[in-house]
Amino acid sequence: MYRHVKELQFEAKPEKPDALYAMKLQELIGGQFGELTVTLQYMFQGANCRMPGKYKDMILDIGAEELGHVEMISVMIARLLEGAPSETTAEAAAANPALAAILGGMNPQHAIVSGGGALPANSQGVPWSGAYIVASGNLLTDFRSNAAAEGQGRLQTSRLYNMTDDPGVKAMLQYNLARDTYHQQQWLLAIEQLVQDGLCDVIEDSNADIENAEYNHTLFQNEVSTGADGRWAQGPSLVGNQQLDAQLSVPFTDDVGLLPAPDPKLFATYDGNNGPGVEGDGGGIAGPKGVVDKLKDAVTGEGS
Amino acid sequence: MYRHVKELQFEAKPEKPDALYAMKLQELIGGQFGELTVTLQYMFQGANCRMPGKYKDMILDIGAEELGHVEMISVMIARLLEGAPSETTAEAAAANPALAAILGGMNPQHAIVSGGGALPANSQGVPWSGAYIVASGNLLTDFRSNAAAEGQGRLQTSRLYNMTDDPGVKAMLQYNLARDTYHQQQWLLAIEQLVQDGLCDVIEDSNADIENAEYNHTLFQNEVSTGADGRWAQGPSLVGNQQLDAQLSVPFTDDVGLLPAPDPKLFATYDGNNGPGVEGDGGGIAGPKGVVDKLKDAVTGEGS
Amino acid sequence: MYRHVKELQFEAKPEKPDALYAMKLQELIGGQFGELTVTLQYMFQGANCRMPGKYKDMILDIGAEELGHVEMISVMIARLLEGAPSETTAEAAAANPALAAILGGMNPQHAIVSGGGALPANSQGVPWSGAYIVASGNLLTDFRSNAAAEGQGRLQTSRLYNMTDDPGVKAMLQYNLARDTYHQQQWLLAIEQLVQDGLCDVIEDSNADIENAEYNHTLFQNEVSTGADGRWAQGPSLVGNQQLDAQLSVPFTDDVGLLPAPDPKLFATYDGNNGPGVEGDGGGIAGPKGVVDKLKDAVTGEGS
Amino acid sequence: MYRHVKELQFEAKPEKPDALYAMKLQELIGGQFGELTVTLQYMFQGANCRMPGKYKDMILDIGAEELGHVEMISVMIARLLEGAPSETTAEAAAANPALAAILGGMNPQHAIVSGGGALPANSQGVPWSGAYIVASGNLLTDFRSNAAAEGQGRLQTSRLYNMTDDPGVKAMLQYNLARDTYHQQQWLLAIEQLVQDGLCDVIEDSNADIENAEYNHTLFQNEVSTGADGRWAQGPSLVGNQQLDAQLSVPFTDDVGLLPAPDPKLFATYDGNNGPGVEGDGGGIAGPKGVVDKLKDAVTGEGS
Amino acid sequence: MYRHVKELQFEAKPEKPDALYAMKLQELIGGQFGELTVTLQYMFQGANCRMPGKYKDMILDIGAEELGHVEMISVMIARLLEGAPSETTAEAAAANPALAAILGGMNPQHAIVSGGGALPANSQGVPWSGAYIVASGNLLTDFRSNAAAEGQGRLQTSRLYNMTDDPGVKAMLQYNLARDTYHQQQWLLAIEQLVQDGLCDVIEDSNADIENAEYNHTLFQNEVSTGADGRWAQGPSLVGNQQLDAQLSVPFTDDVGLLPAPDPKLFATYDGNNGPGVEGDGGGIAGPKGVVDKLKDAVTGEGS
Amino acid sequence: MYRHVKELQFEAKPEKPDALYAMKLQELIGGQFGELTVTLQYMFQGANCRMPGKYKDMILDIGAEELGHVEMISVMIARLLEGAPSETTAEAAAANPALAAILGGMNPQHAIVSGGGALPANSQGVPWSGAYIVASGNLLTDFRSNAAAEGQGRLQTSRLYNMTDDPGVKAMLQYNLARDTYHQQQWLLAIEQLVQDGLCDVIEDSNADIENAEYNHTLFQNEVSTGADGRWAQGPSLVGNQQLDAQLSVPFTDDVGLLPAPDPKLFATYDGNNGPGVEGDGGGIAGPKGVVDKLKDAVTGEGS
Repeated sequence: MYRHVKELQFEAKPEKPDALYAMKLQELIGGQFGELTVTLQYMFQGANCRMPGKYKDMILDIGAEELGHVEMISVMIARLLEGAPSETTAEAAAANPALAAILGGMNPQHAIVSGGGALPANSQGVPWSGAYIVASGNLLTDFRSNAAAEGQGRLQTSRLYNMTDDPGVKAMLQYNLARDTYHQQQWLLAIEQLVQDGLCDVIEDSNADIENAEYNHTLFQNEVSTGADGRWAQGPSLVGNQQLDAQLSVPFTDDVGLLPAPDPKLFATYDGNNGPGVEGDGGGIAGPKGVVDKLKDAVTGEGS
Repeated sequence: MYRHVKELQFEAKPEKPDALYAMKLQELIGGQFGELTVTLQYMFQGANCRMPGKYKDMILDIGAEELGHVEMISVMIARLLEGAPSETTAEAAAANPALAAILGGMNPQHAIVSGGGALPANSQGVPWSGAYIVASGNLLTDFRSNAAAEGQGRLQTSRLYNMTDDPGVKAMLQYNLARDTYHQQQWLLAIEQLVQDGLCDVIEDSNADIENAEYNHTLFQNEVSTGADGRWAQGPSLVGNQQLDAQLSVPFTDDVGLLPAPDPKLFATYDGNNGPGVEGDGGGIAGPKGVVDKLKDAVTGEGS
Repeated sequence: MYRHVKELQFEAKPEKPDALYAMKLQELIGGQFGELTVTLQYMFQGANCRMPGKYKDMILDIGAEELGHVEMISVMIARLLEGAPSETTAEAAAANPALAAILGGMNPQHAIVSGGGALPANSQGVPWSGAYIVASGNLLTDFRSNAAAEGQGRLQTSRLYNMTDDPGVKAMLQYNLARDTYHQQQWLLAIEQLVQDGLCDVIEDSNADIENAEYNHTLFQNEVSTGADGRWAQGPSLVGNQQLDAQLSVPFTDDVGLLPAPDPKLFATYDGNNGPGVEGDGGGIAGPKGVVDKLKDAVTGEGS
Repeated sequence: MYRHVKELQFEAKPEKPDALYAMKLQELIGGQFGELTVTLQYMFQGANCRMPGKYKDMILDIGAEELGHVEMISVMIARLLEGAPSETTAEAAAANPALAAILGGMNPQHAIVSGGGALPANSQGVPWSGAYIVASGNLLTDFRSNAAAEGQGRLQTSRLYNMTDDPGVKAMLQYNLARDTYHQQQWLLAIEQLVQDGLCDVIEDSNADIENAEYNHTLFQNEVSTGADGRWAQGPSLVGNQQLDAQLSVPFTDDVGLLPAPDPKLFATYDGNNGPGVEGDGGGIAGPKGVVDKLKDAVTGEGS
Repeated sequence: MYRHVKELQFEAKPEKPDALYAMKLQELIGGQFGELTVTLQYMFQGANCRMPGKYKDMILDIGAEELGHVEMISVMIARLLEGAPSETTAEAAAANPALAAILGGMNPQHAIVSGGGALPANSQGVPWSGAYIVASGNLLTDFRSNAAAEGQGRLQTSRLYNMTDDPGVKAMLQYNLARDTYHQQQWLLAIEQLVQDGLCDVIEDSNADIENAEYNHTLFQNEVSTGADGRWAQGPSLVGNQQLDAQLSVPFTDDVGLLPAPDPKLFATYDGNNGPGVEGDGGGIAGPKGVVDKLKDAVTGEGS
Repeated sequence: MYRHVKELQFEAKPEKPDALYAMKLQELIGGQFGELTVTLQYMFQGANCRMPGKYKDMILDIGAEELGHVEMISVMIARLLEGAPSETTAEAAAANPALAAILGGMNPQHAIVSGGGALPANSQGVPWSGAYIVASGNLLTDFRSNAAAEGQGRLQTSRLYNMTDDPGVKAMLQYNLARDTYHQQQWLLAIEQLVQDGLCDVIEDSNADIENAEYNHTLFQNEVSTGADGRWAQGPSLVGNQQLDAQLSVPFTDDVGLLPAPDPKLFATYDGNNGPGVEGDGGGIAGPKGVVDKLKDAVTGEGS
């Protein structure tokens, strides 16, 4: 369970309001790589972690921190919206181009919907979605997703840093940049720890024994491409003992994807090229012998 | 531009139909980490790449390959749907429990909407979304996102591999697993190449000089937590010359997030604790001196 | 900021697994009225609250509690998924109808995507959306939304309670029902407190002085309707001193919605009935006098 | 079924066009609490109502009215878009700041997509979603949702009223405000009527007899909180005969959410702390005795 | 405005309930081509129509009819859900495979969320979206979209017809099929009428005079393709006086999409191949002469 | 499978940057009728086509072309974004109204998220959705959808053409207009070819023999409507040998949609008007005779 602490994690005081910047800062709350994404991603990963101890605790530690970042940036946005135009007329806009610009550029929902507060949405007003996050139960793949999210989040923070000269905003973003620096390292080093603890290999390679090894080390290239001129197509593979290489992209089959005759009850357009279609009856699963027969066999002890 | 080649990249022939499995396989087409995600992510990254040569070519090489995977799995799904029940009655369902199960479990849109073909959706029928992908212009962060997506995609493929015993499906998935193995390495090694080519550091650290270094190397922990017992809270940092450490999560400010008096025109609930609110006029941006005055200054050459 | 406490708020231990029920229970996590909705709704309302003290604290108190409910139900779902089928073949499904039913009915993403854990989605697999929540800055309207969400959430919990006979699940849901009972009262009584504190009227009636009082107390009915036979169309109004009544639904204007001639550059289909259209130039806002003229006036001190 | 009446319910004639305001007014059509939400919410509630007579009729009365509001505001938006810029060049924008502001601020889809008409979207261009509405079959909870929606809708209308000085727009919004005033009362009084008619209690309390009464009357507080200083934590409860109170938020269990050993076929990261995992076979539901055995028992009359 | 008529347009009485079919029938309410789509598409097109008279009236006639179809199918779904399992236990499911199938296959939200009524969602539970519809102001393109929607809707209805043998359901769907037959013709003939009335050409060809006529009559083919063997690549064009033909798909430029040097403040990965990047200042629009200069010119009467 | 060709299909070089126009041009990439829609719609239709030969090849020919259009417009957008403001301060905005306008009007994600490149989203920033496309297996209905999409796409292109005077942008759009002209004809003529090849009728009329012919040729009108004054309500029908006509919209049943008594376990509000409700047990499907009995009959050879 969770407890709220009254203070923010870090001060969120702009020197002065800036409604346009408030709109942009929404990307750090409700964007694909905003704070809602990382906090909820870590919370679901934590709940889904199968191992008590350092991994689960660390995931939940950072999850709680990120939730504080949602709060911190929300407060910043509300303060940036102070004095944002709530009333205006065509006359005012025409006489005051800068005001007109703000009116045009600010997120209108910051006035109409949230009454001067932050929204659970990105800088274009698109609501945050649960589809942004992942908690697969596999810590290697999840930590890679986390490192990627922290990297993208830091890059966006860095771009936003350059779009303001408000010292209060800059101070908060300098803090956020630092945390993203740490968190990137945290996930990359956690992968190292997983490997060292013998919990996974350096890449996701479950069922490695049955994958088709003929195709696991080669770049497939388009016709005019220098794509093979990098480490990814030369030298030893990271797993397995293979040499990476490249070849022209070609089909490995003569299968051109022709489909069986369609079920006539579905009214797919069809010229009979593949014989007549038959009505589906689920026979594919029930198999040659009917289900009721199978049950009968099971009951009478015959069959399978 | 693109050209279509008639053959599939790899054979997609199930031994027999299986409508329930067709439903599940949709995750590999239209899920968060399905083939639509990787193909479109790479195509946007390729178009957005600022450097002609090996990186851009390699990104576009793999982008074209992944599109072939969308096609290959689509064909597999259509073939798995052969004979799926298109007509049934309550009587049939009651007398045939396996048929009832298929009727209940299969994706009804595979009959009603696509007429026996694949859908641009995941295994729960949620349509694929452009919000799944990223092309930031920054190759380090994008390659990390790509490596994460290939890892998650391979894990899902591996789980799906275990859910069937159809040799034709297994053969195709063994191929997909191999490609995901290669592609994971491809992106991880491409990061190594970027670093070696001097194009980035090992983590995203733009604006590194201004980040708040006091906070870039520490895990913040909850009260009862063993979260610090890993490499991520001990030893040297990956960038900067610091020692990673941990501390109890505490606020670094006494800012409790109080907001300014609200604009009365927005009807936020307010008890006057922070003085009277004033109507917003955008003055925050225009600053102490009005915009029209500034324009006047600019025209007359006075002021700023 | 937030701190995580290691223990769950309430025990979440099913007596035995039930993958179908796990799928249904997702509605309480990621549905329109699930725990993600209430926790994030309260957190945004708390951050957006303009008054330090009992209201803001109470909102944040309950916000933190609800986040613990997300965690508690996530753990329950993961435990209900123990032993859910991860491997199966057509043969097994045909021979075992109950297994086939589970295979068909369970959320396939519980295996493929989350590896046996909860998802940030509803019982149909639709991801949670930020569009479900509201934080308007106006406590009366927000508390009404909160009371409604707690009521809908309790009703869904109550329906789910009747769909299981697992004593461990029932025990947790009995706790959830109790909390929803309290939380409904909490928001309804908070509205009473707001009114008593003089912070609002019993309904949202901002700008009450300018609303068109002729139309604020009457039900408009269809032709054959007994809709007026209730308190809502009889007796005194809740605000204002009016008698509620009803009348046949009629238009109050002869405006049939004819539109002006279209801008020819937009290629709307048009027969010229309303004269020739002219190309839009934004003149509507700039008004009869051009913008540059207005600026000139402002600078030179002339004009309006 | 429905019939269209040619006249609008109320006149929708702006004095002059205002493309920026047209963009904002979209919130009242396609926002979370716009007219599409209330009309469709009431129509689904009406179709789902189990009782012929005053409740069902009243719900359908207001449903039809709200659809007329969608139409009325759509016409207003189309008229506000008259003369919106459809053609422009960089030169024009540079020379005419007000025009540039409109170009930037207006919804570009009002020109590109709808050709000067309204869109089924909110003020940020996000399409309306069926996920905004609810029709639960339980009139108490639905009427609370309706009262909340009317309150939020009225608040947004009131904010929008203050953002224009066009007398035609103001006249229409004064009408809308009045209807929202009536409709709020309508739903609140309908709840009173439900209670008076013996159809429900004052809060949703189905299965009240089995809820865990120990936890249904207490606010759980964070450590530094004045949250208990309101009616919601003092005095008698609204249902049941209890005294409301408050206490520090604590866990009521020592369950820290540890999960069972994972199914090895799902490749969750695992260190064996909880014993070896076994492959899922759905046995949890089938129970200790297999399904086929159960069927055999049923057929032979033995067992259960 | 609209009025509700108490009777349904057509009887919606199933002979007996069928919860699985209720789930499927949702496609006709909230699917991409369901009744919500057509009713709202026509209502927006009607409000956006620039011509009083037969076109606008016809659009609104059919819009009102389709809303009645939403109602009619909603009632059918609620009736099909009678007796759907609301309570069950693992034991019951194990002993009753058909019940287990229904439990697995039915839409769980039909019990949990709507309490036995229809939902504004498709057969997979995805909420209806405003993004499904279009009202462009151009009747030719809209009528084509309408004809397409009616065709897809009829096809889905026809497939659903074959999935039941309930005479009551069949009777209603026979009615729906008939209406879709008429409505397809209605829109196709309305296009003929538009052409006859001189309001458009047979295809959308606005700005026809400036399109690049070299490329408006040719199919571009992949290398092994028989795609040119149809009327679409032979014979006269429908507009313009050209002969349709085909050719191999080739690039018409040597532009390989290289991008300019990136703005260094955006941290795109860059090797300097295209010279140094410069920080963006919006100069592209302001042009060679600054905006303030332009304003000065405007005010002083100099310049452009 | 697919191969990438290095050159764009057509040159995408703007004369100078224009960040506002880049935002608008996104509609042609990620809008409902943008290039992502047509390319993926055709690719899914191609994979789902049941007939080898001219239709399948033609669909895949155009699918590959459209993907090249996504790429071409993406490059154009990235070039239009050159020099877009990435850094600014309140001061700069106040002193430079045109810059302020760009800052307000441009898509902020073009800087923050994509770093100067295109996004998979529309002109309002809403991500592209798989729900925009259809591949039904029925070529008649799909070709109608395709013709509609090309028409809407061309109309939007045409409107966008009028919003710029950049010769490079105009040249590319002149090419796009030409392709949309050809593609509209392509699909309309492909329908003619389908009819000529005997693969379908002129409208979708599957199951024509059982549709309710009484209702397949009549427009239902509202009371004051001139809707019948067009070809769609007069003259011969396109299929069947009927005369089209019109009549007042009336109900064809006295069914007012009353629902059965609700299942008490779902807590729908109910006054007992329709007798007592009973708990659902799925009996509706199992019928009067229980499922286990049916199985017993099947096994013992008795019963049905």
